[in-house]
Amino acid sequence: RTGDSQQDKKVDAVKDALFHLLGEVTIRKPSFLDALFFPQDDESRIVEYLNLAHKTIDVCVFTISNDYLAWALYDLHKKGVKVRIITDDECSTNRGSDIQDLADAGIPCRLDSDPNAHMHNKFAIIDGHILVNGSFNWTQQAVEKNQENLSIIDSEELCQKYTKEYEKLWAKFEHE
Amino acid sequence: RTGDSQQDKKVDAVKDALFHLLGEVTIRKPSFLDALFFPQDDESRIVEYLNLAHKTIDVCVFTISNDYLAWALYDLHKKGVKVRIITDDECSTNRGSDIQDLADAGIPCRLDSDPNAHMHNKFAIIDGHILVNGSFNWTQQAVEKNQENLSIIDSEELCQKYTKEYEKLWAKFEHE
Ligand SMILES: [Zn+2]
Ligand SMILES: [Zn+2]
Repeated sequence: RTGDSQQDKKVDAVKDALFHLLGEVTIRKPSFLDALFFPQDDESRIVEYLNLAHKTIDVCVFTISNDYLAWALYDLHKKGVKVRIITDDECSTNRGSDIQDLADAGIPCRLDSDPNAHMHNKFAIIDGHILVNGSFNWTQQAVEKNQENLSIIDSEELCQKYTKEYEKLWAKFEHE
Repeated sequence: RTGDSQQDKKVDAVKDALFHLLGEVTIRKPSFLDALFFPQDDESRIVEYLNLAHKTIDVCVFTISNDYLAWALYDLHKKGVKVRIITDDECSTNRGSDIQDLADAGIPCRLDSDPNAHMHNKFAIIDGHILVNGSFNWTQQAVEKNQENLSIIDSEELCQKYTKEYEKLWAKFEHE
């Protein structure tokens, strides 16, 4: 019996060591790690990921003139998801820009009005843990013609870095 | 002794089960998972990552006119790293483009010459397992003025998807 209990302790020690090792050298496998490439993919693939949102979507894109993506954001806003948008001013006054419509619908939008620099990012953070990021602007041209990419990464660690930058830009563009 | 060897088998079974679990629910923690934000970061951060290359760098960027980054690619090429570059034609003839210099130095470069669509990607794959991807164009403007980002992700799984797209574009632009 004494031998058994000593062996049990050894078993527990092995278990503890392995769980410790697991914490040190691994992260949880992301529920997904995907890449979209345009023009072969289309906006519906992006909307699938946006629709995973339960709580928040923080969008930070140079321009939004793709109606399909704008409608997706509008629908999520109506469902109670807290949508925020940062975009670049020059593009928001372009023909076809959906920013004014989205702002009128009650979605908080902030604009970069610096004429000498562009808010050139094209990323979105979904529920604080899914990053959508790449070269893809939220336009029709980007879908139909250009070679573009988006990587979709489920990582709280990476999203924390992007959320920090998002909050910085959100504060910066408050009065612009 | 029989009791001991049965316990040893149990210990082995726990170990096997945990290693199996480890393979099922986890991936190896990336040696890094980083994000760069401009203008607060600078090109030296990108060069640090490029310099991790031992074998290959596949660059797929809309434009290269940042001398600091072009020099880094040239240095790696001289050291024996297999560098390849895909870029967009309109930009390669822009003033300040470094593409002709890099091609003259012996780096294989392929150009998108379609006037109606842009090769708008801005990614690089290092040694087949590190992806550098975001909004950042390899220009001076991108570093100094624009709000831009790059995520740096050590993931073979993700890089396999980007390498597949890279080879597709490399073949597509062979005769352009
Ligand atoms: Zn601007
Ligand atoms: Zn082009």
